[in-house]
Amino acid sequence: MADTGSVDVSGVRLRTVEHHLDEILGAVPTPEPIELAVLDAQGLLCAELVTSERALPSFDQAGLDGYAVRSADVATATVETPVALHVVGESAAGSGDATAIGPGLAWKVAVGAMMPVGADVVVPAAWTDQGLARVAVYAALAPGSYVRRIGDDVAPGDVAVQVGTPIGPAQISLLAAVGRERVAVRPRPRIAVLCAGDELVDVGRIAGPGQQVDVNSYALAAAARDAGAEAYRAGIMPNDRRRMVELLEGQMLRSDVVLIAGTFANGGPDLLQEALAELGGLAFTQVAMHPGPVHAFGRLGPEGVPVICVPGEPVAALVAFEVFVRPAIRLMLGKRQLFRRTVQAVSAEQLLSPLGYRQYLHGQVMRHPDGGYVVEPIGDGDQAMLARMARANCLIVVDEDVTEVAAGGLVTVMPMLLGG
Amino acid sequence: MADTGSVDVSGVRLRTVEHHLDEILGAVPTPEPIELAVLDAQGLLCAELVTSERALPSFDQAGLDGYAVRSADVATATVETPVALHVVGESAAGSGDATAIGPGLAWKVAVGAMMPVGADVVVPAAWTDQGLARVAVYAALAPGSYVRRIGDDVAPGDVAVQVGTPIGPAQISLLAAVGRERVAVRPRPRIAVLCAGDELVDVGRIAGPGQQVDVNSYALAAAARDAGAEAYRAGIMPNDRRRMVELLEGQMLRSDVVLIAGTFANGGPDLLQEALAELGGLAFTQVAMHPGPVHAFGRLGPEGVPVICVPGEPVAALVAFEVFVRPAIRLMLGKRQLFRRTVQAVSAEQLLSPLGYRQYLHGQVMRHPDGGYVVEPIGDGDQAMLARMARANCLIVVDEDVTEVAAGGLVTVMPMLLGG
Repeated sequence: MADTGSVDVSGVRLRTVEHHLDEILGAVPTPEPIELAVLDAQGLLCAELVTSERALPSFDQAGLDGYAVRSADVATATVETPVALHVVGESAAGSGDATAIGPGLAWKVAVGAMMPVGADVVVPAAWTDQGLARVAVYAALAPGSYVRRIGDDVAPGDVAVQVGTPIGPAQISLLAAVGRERVAVRPRPRIAVLCAGDELVDVGRIAGPGQQVDVNSYALAAAARDAGAEAYRAGIMPNDRRRMVELLEGQMLRSDVVLIAGTFANGGPDLLQEALAELGGLAFTQVAMHPGPVHAFGRLGPEGVPVICVPGEPVAALVAFEVFVRPAIRLMLGKRQLFRRTVQAVSAEQLLSPLGYRQYLHGQVMRHPDGGYVVEPIGDGDQAMLARMARANCLIVVDEDVTEVAAGGLVTVMPMLLGG
Repeated sequence: MADTGSVDVSGVRLRTVEHHLDEILGAVPTPEPIELAVLDAQGLLCAELVTSERALPSFDQAGLDGYAVRSADVATATVETPVALHVVGESAAGSGDATAIGPGLAWKVAVGAMMPVGADVVVPAAWTDQGLARVAVYAALAPGSYVRRIGDDVAPGDVAVQVGTPIGPAQISLLAAVGRERVAVRPRPRIAVLCAGDELVDVGRIAGPGQQVDVNSYALAAAARDAGAEAYRAGIMPNDRRRMVELLEGQMLRSDVVLIAGTFANGGPDLLQEALAELGGLAFTQVAMHPGPVHAFGRLGPEGVPVICVPGEPVAALVAFEVFVRPAIRLMLGKRQLFRRTVQAVSAEQLLSPLGYRQYLHGQVMRHPDGGYVVEPIGDGDQAMLARMARANCLIVVDEDVTEVAAGGLVTVMPMLLGG
């Protein structure tokens, strides 16, 4: 369908998943780069062009343990007709003494040791008799063999790490080698996680009749961390508009994004919607998705801090996180790949889905012995089944215009590996 | 070949990669489980059988917004012949008031609200005229429809999280729901990272002739964190045996594993080998691998703390980390999958490898448009090329008995995704 941003479903006007996602992705800020110690930069994206002021290696050195010699001296060497040279010295790695050899001479070198002036190859110890005063060389070598030349790896002025490169152990290795203790990176976005609802009580307490334990502030903070954010669990909203506004203002000051899970009254009086209105107001909309159609997004307060509201039902909250919040976090981190990789899988069972809604079902995806993937839904998408969700390893995505997938039919599956 | 633990290569007795790895994996400790706040448990493996003392849901509740009714009352309802019921009340989520309905009556309910006694289905609002005092119902429903029954998800005594389950957002959600603020997990192993060598200077300093910047303590600490360990960068070893022993003793007290990178003298005098001997002694051995054949492993001190020595050349150090240390960290974390997944890829170039040695080359692996993978080596495995390693996304593994892979031939490739 042409995406006009909304669809009619049984006479109700709903916002499409894409429209809501585009609004969020278009409004999240790009946090300013910060400078971190190289080890703390791990997993983040480089935000500066790091050029080297140094040459790597910084001097000509032996590439392995052996004998530094002149290649011309050993040009005729074979196992049958070895060439004998006088060993006139020995260097370990770390010695800065200037050394030199002339024709007919050899210098014993350890890997990493400075090459003596005059030598242009290192003969590996295994290709010699490993003599101490005199050494017999059994093979000829091309000039430069087993020598690491100054600047071979990085010349002064060369780019060491590009803008946008993810910093892993190999980049940290290179940054240290060019002498960098700190590096500018895209920071982890700071996300405050709140939940709203009269029915909520904190985890340590026993839920009375009609009450629910606050699950979402834990689960969403964990999901936000897993996606790369610095997440703060700010817990359950107070049941008072004044204090709600103060709490929100405080969180907006210290956060790049505020994430709120709640069961929002559909039209009726709602304390949180009143508090949000005081800060500028969010439009609550029905999004054409299952589970959990009630969503909201807006930028509030003088700084225009993005506030994302997701459904309060815990399964729907984590699905909404996957669909809307994780891509926003990855965008703020500067990642090119915002979305999880999807695969096509054969459905092991018939799947039913309401017309006009994009349905997300938890499932178990497995490799098929004949290649490809098979997926089994876990439980019933309509129900708030935490224990079932915890056994899932993927989301099954059934498009808006599909109402039935036959057993054996293909569906889109989004594997959800931790840390991925 | 039958793995006897060692191989002869050109008359030199070398230890196989498997033998060295088996020795390390057989000796690393299993850290005792610790109890953490659920959010801090993220990414770790559960170390207790968590059973629920509660029922989830803890009361019968509406599965969506609508009208709680008696299924018998609406058994004949259709769009053409709707059934009209009196709406006698309304409940939001969070209300603990006991309510009830009799025949011919309906109770308006929000998702999560307690079911009134007597009602056995919730009619979705969309299947009614959404009346306030009287509601017309357009469809019959099977008993139990859109009702979440007490204990449907988890009954008291049910297992919520099994021993060995990785704790992600869904598990944190479930742990919170069953009222757990803390959970026992396999802890992150603590790894001290040191480097040894007269040639080393700290990153902040300019390396003089023959000197090298300490790259390894940064890169290996980053790699250890990436693998899931809690890594401490203890830096460059002092150049004095007494202080070396003291530093090692201190690190052994606070660590599950001590990791040392260094260029170890092959037979000659070596301060670190003397210091290690004082603590019990490590056997330095040649392992049949490239790059970096000199390795050591042993358990030192009264507590028998595992000490792993890897080559000091930075590319070889990170390869050794992949081959020996990462699997050991994953074993300590309790992970079932110790090794990275490997794939077979078509080599874009001819690869040469020394007979008897398992060669690890950095490469760029890409998906082939026709399916499968293609890999290109980056640079020359013999050389210490940090800039090239930083561009790699995989290790190419060439087995001991292979000396040449033709362009177009298949090789084993180990993709190295961050955080994987």
